[in-house]
Amino acid sequence: MSSGEAAGGATSVLPVHVEFGHCDPAGIVWYPNFYEWFDAASHRLAERAGVGLHALRARGYLGLPLMQTGATYRRPVRFGDDVEVRSTVVSAERRSFRVEHRIVRDGETMLEGFEVRFLGEPHPDDPQRLRAAELPDWFRASLGVG
Amino acid sequence: MSSGEAAGGATSVLPVHVEFGHCDPAGIVWYPNFYEWFDAASHRLAERAGVGLHALRARGYLGLPLMQTGATYRRPVRFGDDVEVRSTVVSAERRSFRVEHRIVRDGETMLEGFEVRFLGEPHPDDPQRLRAAELPDWFRASLGVG
Amino acid sequence: MSSGEAAGGATSVLPVHVEFGHCDPAGIVWYPNFYEWFDAASHRLAERAGVGLHALRARGYLGLPLMQTGATYRRPVRFGDDVEVRSTVVSAERRSFRVEHRIVRDGETMLEGFEVRFLGEPHPDDPQRLRAAELPDWFRASLGVG
Amino acid sequence: MSSGEAAGGATSVLPVHVEFGHCDPAGIVWYPNFYEWFDAASHRLAERAGVGLHALRARGYLGLPLMQTGATYRRPVRFGDDVEVRSTVVSAERRSFRVEHRIVRDGETMLEGFEVRFLGEPHPDDPQRLRAAELPDWFRASLGVG
Repeated sequence: MSSGEAAGGATSVLPVHVEFGHCDPAGIVWYPNFYEWFDAASHRLAERAGVGLHALRARGYLGLPLMQTGATYRRPVRFGDDVEVRSTVVSAERRSFRVEHRIVRDGETMLEGFEVRFLGEPHPDDPQRLRAAELPDWFRASLGVG
Repeated sequence: MSSGEAAGGATSVLPVHVEFGHCDPAGIVWYPNFYEWFDAASHRLAERAGVGLHALRARGYLGLPLMQTGATYRRPVRFGDDVEVRSTVVSAERRSFRVEHRIVRDGETMLEGFEVRFLGEPHPDDPQRLRAAELPDWFRASLGVG
Repeated sequence: MSSGEAAGGATSVLPVHVEFGHCDPAGIVWYPNFYEWFDAASHRLAERAGVGLHALRARGYLGLPLMQTGATYRRPVRFGDDVEVRSTVVSAERRSFRVEHRIVRDGETMLEGFEVRFLGEPHPDDPQRLRAAELPDWFRASLGVG
Repeated sequence: MSSGEAAGGATSVLPVHVEFGHCDPAGIVWYPNFYEWFDAASHRLAERAGVGLHALRARGYLGLPLMQTGATYRRPVRFGDDVEVRSTVVSAERRSFRVEHRIVRDGETMLEGFEVRFLGEPHPDDPQRLRAAELPDWFRASLGVG
């Protein structure tokens, strides 16, 4: 599925008010903060889809660690701006899924990012380590990427 | 014991290079970062004194949570500055101890802070909760506040 | 004025959802984050009182830097908690004012903190430096500490 | 030039001790921190190459903003680990350059990331905005991507 057509993938909208402390000496958001918002948005999305951390742990999983992340910056975001992080689960592989995020101000996309995450389970050889579980059907259905 | 005479209390010196991302739109260090450095300095100090997190957990304790923190800002710290966080355990009560931190640039104190921490142990009524342990002798000796 | 009776001092309430990334390996909020919320709350309060950064800069001031901060931790705040930062300007001196913050979950105070801030103006001898301005009447009136 | 052969591109090595506060409830580094380290590493690299922020501002430029960033996570990084951020300028286009970062522990690559940055100059139509300057020869030579 292309990322353009998020046919049924779980979504969320996280409003963020840009704080003084999010901004750098150039007066614009210091870019690691965007990833903090992506992470918060993905947790919010998973929570609402019924696969938040507590639900996953209750089933013996360890969380939703990252395989890959990225962002493309289009316009500067400034102190005092009110933006939305609009997030969609756009696709899934056998052992991973992809969330795409757009940060939008007044209807305009300021930047775009993505996260590829997996469902962590204890490694059978060493419970201290974790590995990427095959995504179960109930998990795929929750995220709308059945 | 007054904080002026740290008679034998454990100490550490943590060098910090002030990064672009530590600074706010006014071009000076955004103040929550100072507390991040205090926390790092205290963990470093505890580690060197033999009471780091891994050592504490091996003895059944849960870490060194905070009771109180504070800071007094004297001079602005700027992007590119090289500073030191100089930390000393200055005193201990029955169930807590106090670490004092100074952030120094070229011999000049830019700001002063402190942390009052306790030694966390599982609560006997509920292992999910933690409470402040009476500080054992070996712990007091390690921090030089016997 | 004692901090107990905030007779008319400006107030704000900032809701915060505790994110995964706010929490440390012990599963509770890593304490420098509380200061990030205090800072955001004070900027929010100042903005609503008509003395936000843009308004101050339009009058030739440089912002609201810190003189002193502190916090006392009562109960741990955890991933997923919904809390409020309740802030009040409780008093003012000739060149500083004090904001008190309480972080409240379900009506219970989890921790308390404060900030003493000043109104920065360019130093007459060196415009690169800043100093604490005498608080003008309009500023005191805006914060309700006339 | 492929990123495999960084023929002459400027490099830097930034040592990082993984602090308690860098880690999340899963006990591993919370991923936005890696981008904080990439940013610090790039500033360090630019500084050493003679194109740090102060040098750029002295020539009328506004800094080195981001066009794109990304990371691929291979192995978890944990509290107490000592790692290095190894950074290289691998290529340049007419108006941007690419820095690649590897985070290495005991000779093993834990994760890889990159930043595409540009040289910001005031926009001729509006000095409040900035645009990507054509990279001057002295700048390319400093970064070893002549």
